[in-house]
Amino acid sequence: MKTGTRPVPLSRNDFKSFVAVTTRWMDNDVYGHMNNVVYYSLFDTAVNQSLIAKGMLDIHHANTIGLVVHSACNYFSSVAFPDAISVGLCVEHIGTSSVRYRLGVFRGDDEMCAALGQFVHVYVDRESRRPVEHAPEFLALLRRWSVSAPTSDSV
Amino acid sequence: MKTGTRPVPLSRNDFKSFVAVTTRWMDNDVYGHMNNVVYYSLFDTAVNQSLIAKGMLDIHHANTIGLVVHSACNYFSSVAFPDAISVGLCVEHIGTSSVRYRLGVFRGDDEMCAALGQFVHVYVDRESRRPVEHAPEFLALLRRWSVSAPTSDSV
Amino acid sequence: MKTGTRPVPLSRNDFKSFVAVTTRWMDNDVYGHMNNVVYYSLFDTAVNQSLIAKGMLDIHHANTIGLVVHSACNYFSSVAFPDAISVGLCVEHIGTSSVRYRLGVFRGDDEMCAALGQFVHVYVDRESRRPVEHAPEFLALLRRWSVSAPTSDSV
Amino acid sequence: MKTGTRPVPLSRNDFKSFVAVTTRWMDNDVYGHMNNVVYYSLFDTAVNQSLIAKGMLDIHHANTIGLVVHSACNYFSSVAFPDAISVGLCVEHIGTSSVRYRLGVFRGDDEMCAALGQFVHVYVDRESRRPVEHAPEFLALLRRWSVSAPTSDSV
Repeated sequence: MKTGTRPVPLSRNDFKSFVAVTTRWMDNDVYGHMNNVVYYSLFDTAVNQSLIAKGMLDIHHANTIGLVVHSACNYFSSVAFPDAISVGLCVEHIGTSSVRYRLGVFRGDDEMCAALGQFVHVYVDRESRRPVEHAPEFLALLRRWSVSAPTSDSV
Repeated sequence: MKTGTRPVPLSRNDFKSFVAVTTRWMDNDVYGHMNNVVYYSLFDTAVNQSLIAKGMLDIHHANTIGLVVHSACNYFSSVAFPDAISVGLCVEHIGTSSVRYRLGVFRGDDEMCAALGQFVHVYVDRESRRPVEHAPEFLALLRRWSVSAPTSDSV
Repeated sequence: MKTGTRPVPLSRNDFKSFVAVTTRWMDNDVYGHMNNVVYYSLFDTAVNQSLIAKGMLDIHHANTIGLVVHSACNYFSSVAFPDAISVGLCVEHIGTSSVRYRLGVFRGDDEMCAALGQFVHVYVDRESRRPVEHAPEFLALLRRWSVSAPTSDSV
Repeated sequence: MKTGTRPVPLSRNDFKSFVAVTTRWMDNDVYGHMNNVVYYSLFDTAVNQSLIAKGMLDIHHANTIGLVVHSACNYFSSVAFPDAISVGLCVEHIGTSSVRYRLGVFRGDDEMCAALGQFVHVYVDRESRRPVEHAPEFLALLRRWSVSAPTSDSV
């Protein structure tokens, strides 16, 4: 919001992985659409569920856990219960122990996202909460999910 | 909990209609399973989504809305994000302007429910909030969803 | 709902301990009042916060944790964001390893509760999840919180 | 996260208005601290509750409602149930029909915020959902809440 560039919706092609989520009655606020807060719950779900599906996160036993240090969302159009939603995910930036994910909330079969988010995880040791460098197999996954993956892959 | 009868899990056969719901990262509480509160959000969702699917509820424009006057849940076993869940629904009692729904939370393909709930809606006028008698087409739906429906149908 | 006795609101005198809670914008659902689900979040909060305040629960390190096996609520009148709320608590029944709490949701300075709940905790070992008998100091607290405490005290 | 400037915590002096909020048991996620999503619920609450307190928002009857078009948060340190929290608020930017609020989440009596957020409201007509210019009395309030208010006032 600080720069001269106005955020614009992205399409499904701008994401690498999708998670289907259902909406709930209480997601709708008094104005009849999904409350702005709930989108972040969908981001959280999409990132963690995708990591679990790839065998990269064990909520209960993993020594390394992901803490959120930054998140953001631009809202373009409304979604509302009982809409079915797909959350698209890709990786915008890979740091030593951090990852910035891009997330898109798609209503039904819409081609363009209703909301576009960012979500930065820092991976830390569960006990000490100190940053942990990405393991090689995790790094490989992050690269496949990277926005620049097709180009990178073609090198 | 007041009587000598201990609640027991029911099976999928004890319900008439099912709604598939997804779990969310934040559904898990500090003990690593879905927080007891979230089950009620699934009940709310299952009842309203089923009514909307049958054309019996228009959240934004209906003159008649359903207010919850009683709810309850017995918890038998844990569910947790990222479990997929089915919520089973049937009608236990039909009053003049009220309905008592039975709800079952089924983890994945489990045959027996992990939690069993009750949810009593009173249907009221949106503005006056006074009880409204069930319309004939709504009553017909409630009867099809009734626990005693097979017997009734066979008459 | 099963018996002929219709639930009625209780007054502040029917509770032993109170926890002040604030409401949130997203507590209000599309009908403009606090969603029925949120009341259970207040019950959960009141019980656990009261136990923590008395030194009877350490969320992170306790060997014994409380699992909810039953909850219920009767709703008498609406509350809504931005109402301030007090949640009253007392103990209705003490089992070997379980406790049934009574909870009342009071809007502002209202004398009668807007909603009346029940919440049954079974205390279990964090690892094995097997029931644990109440420790003597916990039992003493539960008796002070008991609905029949004044009578007992006068003996 | 895009620029070279790393976000840093602000102090209570960097905010103009405060709202006290209580935490809830289910705010804590499986890692034992308040889930990243919940902060946004506190932002939403602080902005709307402050507006209601000033007579600038009537949830049920106002012709003008605030829709969120952007939100963001940087997380510096953890808060957790049962922490008491103050949410600080000020106005960073006033547009024709939009406002960018700055929000700070303060744990207990901490001087520095645990999280720092942004929240952009566009004020629209409830029915048409088209932007509405700020009314003079609303503009006056926004200016008093502005980060540059002391300087402006002294002119």
